[in-house]
Amino acid sequence: MVHRFIEACYRRPVDRTPIWLMRQAGRYLPEYRAIRAKVSFLELCKTPDLAAEVTLQPVDILGVDAAILFSDILVVCEAMGMQLILEDQGPQFPAPLQLLADIEKLHVPDPEAELGYVMEAIRRVRRGLADRVPLIGFCGAPWTLAAYMVEGKTSRSFEKAKALLMGDEKLAHALLSKITDSLILYLNAQLAAGAQAVQIFDSWAGALGPEDYARFGAPYLARLIAGLKREGQPVIVFGVETGELLVQLAKIGADVVGIDWRVPLDAARRRVGASVALQGNLDPATLFLPLPELQKRVARVLALADRAGPGHIFNLGHGVLPGTPVENVKALVELVHAHPPSR
Amino acid sequence: MVHRFIEACYRRPVDRTPIWLMRQAGRYLPEYRAIRAKVSFLELCKTPDLAAEVTLQPVDILGVDAAILFSDILVVCEAMGMQLILEDQGPQFPAPLQLLADIEKLHVPDPEAELGYVMEAIRRVRRGLADRVPLIGFCGAPWTLAAYMVEGKTSRSFEKAKALLMGDEKLAHALLSKITDSLILYLNAQLAAGAQAVQIFDSWAGALGPEDYARFGAPYLARLIAGLKREGQPVIVFGVETGELLVQLAKIGADVVGIDWRVPLDAARRRVGASVALQGNLDPATLFLPLPELQKRVARVLALADRAGPGHIFNLGHGVLPGTPVENVKALVELVHAHPPSR
Repeated sequence: MVHRFIEACYRRPVDRTPIWLMRQAGRYLPEYRAIRAKVSFLELCKTPDLAAEVTLQPVDILGVDAAILFSDILVVCEAMGMQLILEDQGPQFPAPLQLLADIEKLHVPDPEAELGYVMEAIRRVRRGLADRVPLIGFCGAPWTLAAYMVEGKTSRSFEKAKALLMGDEKLAHALLSKITDSLILYLNAQLAAGAQAVQIFDSWAGALGPEDYARFGAPYLARLIAGLKREGQPVIVFGVETGELLVQLAKIGADVVGIDWRVPLDAARRRVGASVALQGNLDPATLFLPLPELQKRVARVLALADRAGPGHIFNLGHGVLPGTPVENVKALVELVHAHPPSR
Repeated sequence: MVHRFIEACYRRPVDRTPIWLMRQAGRYLPEYRAIRAKVSFLELCKTPDLAAEVTLQPVDILGVDAAILFSDILVVCEAMGMQLILEDQGPQFPAPLQLLADIEKLHVPDPEAELGYVMEAIRRVRRGLADRVPLIGFCGAPWTLAAYMVEGKTSRSFEKAKALLMGDEKLAHALLSKITDSLILYLNAQLAAGAQAVQIFDSWAGALGPEDYARFGAPYLARLIAGLKREGQPVIVFGVETGELLVQLAKIGADVVGIDWRVPLDAARRRVGASVALQGNLDPATLFLPLPELQKRVARVLALADRAGPGHIFNLGHGVLPGTPVENVKALVELVHAHPPSR
């Protein structure tokens, strides 16, 4: 079956603009909260039945054009050997990396053996979807995972990660390479299990200036994407605060570049060129606005996307925020589906 | 006396590149921590003797080319009628703005009467400096202060502030206008008391896309700057994540635009044109690097500044981070002073 999401990723004609939303399975949905009341976040990631159930919720409730696997970018770090705590106040590694010896102790996990719950969730989601819409698998980008593993938690300024990686090129390469090798196996296992596209989240890309991103970010993304065994499964790359990095992100081999809400899509197109599709980029906070104002802003994103030419997947410029009114999210999906697609 | 900092703000020739650092008076300095051990942050702001003392510390210790008044951007909001708590985990307004009626209750403060401790600190710093280097006064930008006053504290996504302001243009204008009126009086009082330059911090500028910044950010900055009574005192505007906003920031009447570390200075110059000086933009995290690596990065910023042409004030791309090694900050000042200036 031809899916408009996949077609748009390859900049082929579509009947209407496809839409899915980062964190579409999440706390703003009462159905999700009902499940989370029973299990912790990490248990949810590790229980294929439940992970599959929350993955399917937004497809049924919102009518989006793609499902994205419910999981967390950091589970692969746990499989590499890091103790991981995932709680509502944010993820934590109680023993962050400090030395080359810490990195040498990490191993490249066998995904089916050590992250089997992810692949099992993918297989269950595919059965549950019965080809209604495609399923997107995902992982974090090497730089973002490395930054988390060195900081031990989220950070505003990432000085520990930068001091360690920028101060020792050999150590940086050892860590980023080991993560990249792990992610190649991990995403290939997701693709083999049934993921019909993959998104790589470089959440902390914007912590690096362009010269540092060219050393610590983009090359490892390129190596990761080059290592994937794909048959018509597109790759999306997304980061936050990437305005200055879009030229690099367009050249790493991804089919689609996700744009945060800071860069208008026509400006983004001028930076990425004609070889990739664009995904984005409504400000997630605008989902809290009254419907007429939301309507105007959705129309504006669609108009700029039209100007940017074929190959647009509608999304937010970041994840759905907790507390977002569900009726506004439903209205958003309807508004996008009512719009004639980019040609 | 001619000061190289002032000369560079006006893009006039200088004997060497001037340098000062955002948060140069702060927790990384043991001399600052010794004073903070005795008084709270807000008490320090409100005690002119102590505020003047910490303002002078980095001039004596580091040899920077300008002092910046020790204070907080939110004290003006307190004078407008908001209860303010300033603690180490971040500032808080326990009763954030929710309705037009809340905004109507705020008043435009008389700075000498209600913020007299700020002007008194300025007068004491000027006496302590004895014209060694100029003193920079400062305030927050209207959008940033409005965002704080609606959120009640710092935020990652500012959905409350955006929902309130973007959802009701009239309310937004009422709030941003009242803040702007307050800031005009406040900065004029700082200038009259002896501030030899002023910096406007639009810390949350980057939360807005360019179209929203053109509505809620830039126009109020322009009105604020137009309202200042100046005689050779330059205005600097600085925000974080402003890559997409630099074109607007160059046109609001400021003499200097501060650049965060994400945008190389030569790229920044292409966006702002020839009419303003540039301030910045070393990544503050690089002050944690070993000296040879720090040296390379300082040289790179200076080389890009040379390429950007006359009018460069060296600074970080954001404030000095707590825990930054003081010896590295001293080394930074020496490295910049050893460099022949931009022509």
